[in-house]
Amino acid sequence: MAAAAVLGQRGACCAYGAAAGTAESGGTEIIAYHHISTVSASLVSRSTEDLASGRRARLRRTWLASPRCKDLPSSTNYVISGHDRLALDSCSSTTSPSPSFRITAAAAAAAADGAGAEDTAVATPPPLPESGGDSAGGGEHAQLVDESHTLTLDGIRNTLIRLEDSIIFHLIERAQYKWNLPTYDARMISVPPHNLSLLAFLLRETERLHSNVRRYTSPDEHPFFPDAIERPLLPPLLYPKVLCAGSGVVNVNPAIWKMYIEWLVPQLTEEGDDKNYGSAATCDVLCLQALSRRIHYGKFVAEAKCREAMEEYDRLIYNKDREGIIKKLTVEAVEDAVVRRVELKARTFGQDILESGVAAACDSEEPRKIDPKIVARLYQDGIMPLTKEVEVEYLLRRLDFPSTP
Amino acid sequence: MAAAAVLGQRGACCAYGAAAGTAESGGTEIIAYHHISTVSASLVSRSTEDLASGRRARLRRTWLASPRCKDLPSSTNYVISGHDRLALDSCSSTTSPSPSFRITAAAAAAAADGAGAEDTAVATPPPLPESGGDSAGGGEHAQLVDESHTLTLDGIRNTLIRLEDSIIFHLIERAQYKWNLPTYDARMISVPPHNLSLLAFLLRETERLHSNVRRYTSPDEHPFFPDAIERPLLPPLLYPKVLCAGSGVVNVNPAIWKMYIEWLVPQLTEEGDDKNYGSAATCDVLCLQALSRRIHYGKFVAEAKCREAMEEYDRLIYNKDREGIIKKLTVEAVEDAVVRRVELKARTFGQDILESGVAAACDSEEPRKIDPKIVARLYQDGIMPLTKEVEVEYLLRRLDFPSTP
Repeated sequence: MAAAAVLGQRGACCAYGAAAGTAESGGTEIIAYHHISTVSASLVSRSTEDLASGRRARLRRTWLASPRCKDLPSSTNYVISGHDRLALDSCSSTTSPSPSFRITAAAAAAAADGAGAEDTAVATPPPLPESGGDSAGGGEHAQLVDESHTLTLDGIRNTLIRLEDSIIFHLIERAQYKWNLPTYDARMISVPPHNLSLLAFLLRETERLHSNVRRYTSPDEHPFFPDAIERPLLPPLLYPKVLCAGSGVVNVNPAIWKMYIEWLVPQLTEEGDDKNYGSAATCDVLCLQALSRRIHYGKFVAEAKCREAMEEYDRLIYNKDREGIIKKLTVEAVEDAVVRRVELKARTFGQDILESGVAAACDSEEPRKIDPKIVARLYQDGIMPLTKEVEVEYLLRRLDFPSTP
Repeated sequence: MAAAAVLGQRGACCAYGAAAGTAESGGTEIIAYHHISTVSASLVSRSTEDLASGRRARLRRTWLASPRCKDLPSSTNYVISGHDRLALDSCSSTTSPSPSFRITAAAAAAAADGAGAEDTAVATPPPLPESGGDSAGGGEHAQLVDESHTLTLDGIRNTLIRLEDSIIFHLIERAQYKWNLPTYDARMISVPPHNLSLLAFLLRETERLHSNVRRYTSPDEHPFFPDAIERPLLPPLLYPKVLCAGSGVVNVNPAIWKMYIEWLVPQLTEEGDDKNYGSAATCDVLCLQALSRRIHYGKFVAEAKCREAMEEYDRLIYNKDREGIIKKLTVEAVEDAVVRRVELKARTFGQDILESGVAAACDSEEPRKIDPKIVARLYQDGIMPLTKEVEVEYLLRRLDFPSTP
């Protein structure tokens, strides 16, 4: 929770951009893994230092032994994002976009429309309605307007705070069941026809189902399995036009997936196996969806911050100054307050309420259904760095589309 | 919360069995509706009296205008349950089961095995694995054993208390969105191919998906759409053999559905429409699943209570003494404690946690994300009467199967 710890994580995050163009520039998958391991290795390191729990130590071994997660869902959007960043790095000293960057931007726009551009292993999804995919704008046929105010700039702060509750509720639900490792390992349980792990199967099919009720036309929802998304059965919904048109391309779900499976679940749950794999996976789906929504909400945060200091951000974005953008985005006092608040929320929501009907003391040190410190660390070292990654990736694209608000 | 109120509801519940054989004995659907309306009309009446909210008054009109909910899912199990009860009523003065009851019991056993027996409108589900359907026992191929202890008699109390938290978490999540009536009315939004309401579609397809990961082989899980259940993709799981073999036949989901849609959602949510129908329905699915699990857990409660006073229950069951069973099952002090506890939980979990990091007062009168009184009333007038209904229906079948533990 100390500011220094936040800074340490911040440093690791910055290193990723620099390395991408050098030793690990050979392929986007490696780039993605490099990024993910940077964030998550920090989490593992902390867990072994801080939690004084011997059983957690093997996590580091697991981590190092598996260069990438077998079940890591491929993400068309994310792959393009990697290329895009390479292009950005390669042309960072020019005053106008290079030809290669223009091509990448076009591919990004195509991806935002739901068409797989480079990852041939991913089936081409069916066409989405006109407001689909990125959904920053609405199609001509849109008649229904989202009136929840959760996606307006005015609503950002409330939405972020409300999402903390959702995440903690879902984590508490998941913690009812043991770790149940076979849920996540396709070598132990493999579900046909794609031989996915149980969780990957359940999340993929849930995303397919929810795409029917237009979940992924909302600009704050990002699928883990873009190839499973189907055309909505509902008429399109018109969302407030807040984000720049190409924003759908930024999708860090592979990193969220890896962080969740390899760091969070083993910390959160009791070690062992109660065979309730289906129940665990059902809870996992809710946790992953809530985490993804919270982290990708960084796009709205970035847009709001950018509008407050337009000139300065324009200069940083134009110069592709990744570190400068991160520095400008960061307000340590706010981050520390968030970490304190989520720990208190976990302490409050995770308590056993007394049967007598007398109010329990929220700040007592009774054991909780989840360890509040893990929620604090999740925010500090997982959610906030990944959100910042989303913010930076979003901002770096912000000037490249004519329809930027 | 007063004992008198509990008694009032209890009276209404008892009246249902008597009426079933007289004015409304023409069809099981009407019987089901009669039962549902008995419980729920009481809820509506209380809401108009107690909440002093003018807008709620129209609920009563809606209620009376629609003799049955258009989207009420047909339930093979429940339909048989209705016939079964008719048969029970008709032979309540005899000392041995009548021939018609024996037939019904056989049909019930068939239904427990997953085959639609009487409701021809429901497609015959595919065969389930040997431990499927009722699942009180495991098939020959079962190798995995549930080790969660949630389905053992020792674990009953903890499970019930833990389910309170789950229900309240899900209700808080649902309350983020407005009422969004079109979510529930197939005349406003109709999803092909079955022209279901949006919620009915989403719940049905979620049940189909979750049946793949063996959700409905667990004896505490009951589908709202039995016709959508598919064969699990996972190997069977062996659960503790606690319930009598025919217990799968008792399924009050149609009553839960009606109570939820027509009473709870309008009370819980802000009036109006924010167009977030998909989000609302996704939360509704979680609420309905949690409510169904909690209410059908009454089978385990009944079994535990029965084992504590075997002789007395045997006599009551043998005499089909429904009112006697209800009286024997009821401990008012315990029920009052439950109502106080869930209200306190809703007050605690529904609070806005202060940003300062200082613990909020759990018993303060700050507005909550949901009204704690509604949760108390939900338990008092909805969950507990329906649980008691499950308990009675379960016990009335308990002596009819050779494998009763």
